Amino acid sequence: MSSPGKPGLAVSPLAVPFPAIAPVRGVELAAAHAGMYKHKRLDVTLMRFAVGSAVAGVFTRHAVGSAPVDWCRTAIKASGGRVRALLVNTGRANSFTGKAGAVAVERTMDAISAELGCPREQVLMASTGVIGQVLEYGKILNVLQQLEETVKPDGWADAAQGIMTTDTFPKGATAEAKLGDHTVRLAGICKGSGMIAPDMATMLAFVATDAAIAPAALQAILSPIAVRTLNSVTVDGDRSTNDTCLLFATGKAGGPEIADPDHPDLAAFKAALEGVLLDLAHQLVRDGEGAQKFVRVEITGAVSEASARKIARTVCESPLVKTAIAGEDANWGRLVMAVGRADEPVERDRIAIRFGDLVAARDGAVSPDYDEAAMSAYMKNDELSITIDVGAGSASAVMWTCDLTHGYISINGDYRS
Amino acid sequence: MSSPGKPGLAVSPLAVPFPAIAPVRGVELAAAHAGMYKHKRLDVTLMRFAVGSAVAGVFTRHAVGSAPVDWCRTAIKASGGRVRALLVNTGRANSFTGKAGAVAVERTMDAISAELGCPREQVLMASTGVIGQVLEYGKILNVLQQLEETVKPDGWADAAQGIMTTDTFPKGATAEAKLGDHTVRLAGICKGSGMIAPDMATMLAFVATDAAIAPAALQAILSPIAVRTLNSVTVDGDRSTNDTCLLFATGKAGGPEIADPDHPDLAAFKAALEGVLLDLAHQLVRDGEGAQKFVRVEITGAVSEASARKIARTVCESPLVKTAIAGEDANWGRLVMAVGRADEPVERDRIAIRFGDLVAARDGAVSPDYDEAAMSAYMKNDELSITIDVGAGSASAVMWTCDLTHGYISINGDYRS
Repeated sequence: MSSPGKPGLAVSPLAVPFPAIAPVRGVELAAAHAGMYKHKRLDVTLMRFAVGSAVAGVFTRHAVGSAPVDWCRTAIKASGGRVRALLVNTGRANSFTGKAGAVAVERTMDAISAELGCPREQVLMASTGVIGQVLEYGKILNVLQQLEETVKPDGWADAAQGIMTTDTFPKGATAEAKLGDHTVRLAGICKGSGMIAPDMATMLAFVATDAAIAPAALQAILSPIAVRTLNSVTVDGDRSTNDTCLLFATGKAGGPEIADPDHPDLAAFKAALEGVLLDLAHQLVRDGEGAQKFVRVEITGAVSEASARKIARTVCESPLVKTAIAGEDANWGRLVMAVGRADEPVERDRIAIRFGDLVAARDGAVSPDYDEAAMSAYMKNDELSITIDVGAGSASAVMWTCDLTHGYISINGDYRS
Repeated sequence: MSSPGKPGLAVSPLAVPFPAIAPVRGVELAAAHAGMYKHKRLDVTLMRFAVGSAVAGVFTRHAVGSAPVDWCRTAIKASGGRVRALLVNTGRANSFTGKAGAVAVERTMDAISAELGCPREQVLMASTGVIGQVLEYGKILNVLQQLEETVKPDGWADAAQGIMTTDTFPKGATAEAKLGDHTVRLAGICKGSGMIAPDMATMLAFVATDAAIAPAALQAILSPIAVRTLNSVTVDGDRSTNDTCLLFATGKAGGPEIADPDHPDLAAFKAALEGVLLDLAHQLVRDGEGAQKFVRVEITGAVSEASARKIARTVCESPLVKTAIAGEDANWGRLVMAVGRADEPVERDRIAIRFGDLVAARDGAVSPDYDEAAMSAYMKNDELSITIDVGAGSASAVMWTCDLTHGYISINGDYRS
């Protein structure tokens, strides 16, 4: 098997194993070597869905965007949210490529829809890689027949490898849930390690289920969950032109298609979906470029959830906070600094900060219980939890990030993207 | 002479020599070793001003703030903007220190005002150093007599050394200007190298002039110039609790005190002040932690100056942009990414990017003139200029930053602040 990802990168110390993913009815996958990179690896992935499958999507809010994202938005609208296939390529993001980039997407979609005998708008596309170079779609057309011949229900692991770029391990998650009288399955894969930030950073995530849910309901379910999962992790605060999260529902588990997103039968499905997306989001942080610490930051006592999220993001993206964590330093002064520059309401003299269960500061000053030895021992953990009460209200939010290390500089200061 | 700054840090490769600063009439300065650090160095600085000197200030917008900043705001108001002295200490920021921190400031101000025989509110204070530890003001009182006995008109170089923290070189600037029939002098010093961002990051800057300008006019002159100078540089986007810029005017050059900030005679003075503050601001970037490149980023074609500034700041604070520059990589794709995540209006298909005079992209795609060899040669320069036209309007803004290197991680990941 060809090797995925970027050669020479050591696997993240925070990596988790790829899970066993059972087939999801109505979904087939395959990955192939199309020659998008100099070294041989799986670099193009096809996901094929049963006729009538529903889709929902969340895309980058990046102002520049990319040709494949433009296409997805257009195609989902034109198809009424019913699609048959998704093609993913690595190597080139096909972003900032003007008309030539859009044509490259259309030619690829033409070829796949011709194979499937469906309208072009029933095929979606996602790309990741170098910005500013037009997709060499001939390389994709060249392996289409192979992909069509090799798609299989248990192709999840290959697909997870096929979408990797600087990722050091493939990322997947799966769950089951009761939906009415049926047991439905969910499975997902994602990629991303740098340029990861709230608002769908350089991140591709594809989740499929055999539940029967109509497109509009699927979208209504996905959007808020994406905020609490994929949009609640940040590696470096940078946001990609190509971020794409797609959720497919084939309906092959049986039962009538549910059109009401608030249908009471959907509760377990929603919880399972949130679990899968949160698992994938955490894996993005665990593969953050150069990451050596997985950090959970919870802000409490904020005036609103939005305010709590903004403070959490400011803390998670502060270079001084992230380097202190890399140095295993419980530097609560830098946390105070980051909290204060979020430009959100805080009560200075009521701020409290905990690392795990250890109180560092309370009532706006260093805690009388501050225990340097216990704190130093805690900071050596691979996984850290920081809780900051800003004393201004009762709302809260959680965000996850990693530390900022020499590894990040090496990967991004040498890598010619 | 005791050594300033942090021991063991190599001087920045972008350092510039400290200028010869002639005395400014009505200003005397001294620095002393008060024992704020374990190693011996100048760590406390006194600036003394002639009776009736005017002052204007710009302070951190940080929500947490610090006891000395609180004091300055209160004292400038209470004194009507007429002050006699400024005390600066390093070692402890006296921020997040509650009532005890405020008391420490008051005791220090009591002692200095008693020496000078002036009301307490005619003495100001600025602090930089560790957050969360109360100022040991006894150490300052201990050297007050020595400071009073050694203040001298040509003490600028000592003062510049006395206010350093992780700075690797002392920073100063000076200028002369015609004001009516008189020639006035301006001189300034500043400190800062990390936690430098727009909105007055961990930065102290003190400028004095012998011009005769009333407090309100001085404030009206300073505020907009601070936006274009000290608030237009960023090292890491982090903002301090203690940022302080103070401008003193002793009036000792002679002539009537000017009370109208729009007085036509002030044009040359304003230009000279902007030159001094811009010089100091650039020195902050040149001493950015780990900096190896001095980078000017100009955004043109924005819908407003505020929009241009926001885009420039987003570019200047992007870790992916900054690491690419460290890698001497003209990675315009990362620039496009950063432009797009500023959430400001841009016209994707009209974006143009230049490195120096070399065109990398135009009309939203890679330039047909792109010359890899010329670009690589350009990127090896210590000083770089990046111009991005976002094609949406006619407003522009300039910001300065440095690259993000292993040096930054070493300084901040090991340094226990």
